[in-house]
Amino acid sequence: MTLTTQFLINGKSDNGLSPLDRGLAYGDGVFRTLKVRQGLPDSWSLHYEKLKYDCGILEISCPDPELLLADIERLFTPEEEAIAKIVITRGAGHRGYAIPAAARPTRIVIRENNPHYPRDNFEHGVNLHLCNLRLSHQPRLAGIKHLNRLENVMARSEWSDGSLVDGVLLDQEDCVIECTMSNLFARMGKTLVTPSLDKCGVAGVTRQRILDNAPYLGYEAEVRALPLEQLMQADEVIICNSVFGAWQVRNFNNRKWPRQDLASRIQTMLRE
Amino acid sequence: MTLTTQFLINGKSDNGLSPLDRGLAYGDGVFRTLKVRQGLPDSWSLHYEKLKYDCGILEISCPDPELLLADIERLFTPEEEAIAKIVITRGAGHRGYAIPAAARPTRIVIRENNPHYPRDNFEHGVNLHLCNLRLSHQPRLAGIKHLNRLENVMARSEWSDGSLVDGVLLDQEDCVIECTMSNLFARMGKTLVTPSLDKCGVAGVTRQRILDNAPYLGYEAEVRALPLEQLMQADEVIICNSVFGAWQVRNFNNRKWPRQDLASRIQTMLRE
Repeated sequence: MTLTTQFLINGKSDNGLSPLDRGLAYGDGVFRTLKVRQGLPDSWSLHYEKLKYDCGILEISCPDPELLLADIERLFTPEEEAIAKIVITRGAGHRGYAIPAAARPTRIVIRENNPHYPRDNFEHGVNLHLCNLRLSHQPRLAGIKHLNRLENVMARSEWSDGSLVDGVLLDQEDCVIECTMSNLFARMGKTLVTPSLDKCGVAGVTRQRILDNAPYLGYEAEVRALPLEQLMQADEVIICNSVFGAWQVRNFNNRKWPRQDLASRIQTMLRE
Repeated sequence: MTLTTQFLINGKSDNGLSPLDRGLAYGDGVFRTLKVRQGLPDSWSLHYEKLKYDCGILEISCPDPELLLADIERLFTPEEEAIAKIVITRGAGHRGYAIPAAARPTRIVIRENNPHYPRDNFEHGVNLHLCNLRLSHQPRLAGIKHLNRLENVMARSEWSDGSLVDGVLLDQEDCVIECTMSNLFARMGKTLVTPSLDKCGVAGVTRQRILDNAPYLGYEAEVRALPLEQLMQADEVIICNSVFGAWQVRNFNNRKWPRQDLASRIQTMLRE
């Protein structure tokens, strides 16, 4: 069954967003993208916790989970597998950066079709682009999935070759941070290294799940600065997000990695 | 006469913005704020030129000026003085950072009341806060008035004291860049210095007008890095934007400046 895109804004489907909404004016808000199966969002408690944490950093009051779950129940049929995007903004306000005392958060839930990724991505791995754009350091916003995403848009526009599924983003000090739509892990022997995101980047829920479950996969997890030259020495590289799970990187920056089993093992762990 | 806020989205007033608009999703767009007097926007050619330039950096096709002027004519009465905010976004698109080939820019014009600033700001000058938040360096977006403005929102939330009209923003290298809603000039003898905005900040139209007219005011203009310690040595400091024009800074960071005449002379020049 193919539904077209649908949405609810504060539970209503009949009208668009106010152009005075600060989500539009300033990117003053946060979002989440997650899979919905049989009407239920995957890893809901982790996603909601992260949404609430991100809202907290911006001092936006996060809507109760019941409201969001009710929106999802209305938008998704029990038979389908699809994608929910949740956006929480500061709400509408008049011109000016000062946060209006009366601002009431806007809650948006959008239903999108599940993307059809080639089976090859899962079975043989993927190729990545190395982005020219360098992420800027802003410790006050680092890790948060906020609506200021022009860096990702500009980085993503660097390639159109369909065989490149994502692009690796470095910061201005030649450290690997993430990809435009995914987080990244490098296996060095028995250690899974993922870049620290205290200066820039988005700390995804799937990244967190892999960190939490690394010991069960037989690895030590390490969060630290990851210079590009160290990534190039990794035994295995994987990228991950809440929509596709985990893919092995096969080609990147003139290096090829042989097919190994970390991505599939993570994929299995994520399904549990 | 007091009108409430009104808007047109692609020339229509009857519906809100699609929640799939990339202006909301990613801050993928640019904006302008300008004064409208007797139905005509102030310094329109400069504002339009800047809007088009900023769109160009993001590779958004800027709507023709006639369309925007027609929107303004519909929203503003000939008798009033009010504020127009123009927002141009990439348009609606499905999930994903890649720029949709079919994206058609969204054109939003919002009418807001003229703010009533105290006469004191013009006659005696203003007090500024020194922001703790430091602007990040992103040369690819520097100077552009794009919709990724969370840094400004967070910086503006640092003070609530009504006697502080704006906050000075430094970068991570202790250089002065701008204020949250205005640009800044420091007079050093016969030179007007304004910070270079090639790594961060927004290059406003009023800043440009002051730079262009500095010789007629009897000054040499200089655009360069301005360390905070040099600003504190300035003979005179002014802030400027397209809504209030120019105000002298009287108190900032434990220094007081006597009332002088640069701000009024600029104010007169801007009215011409």
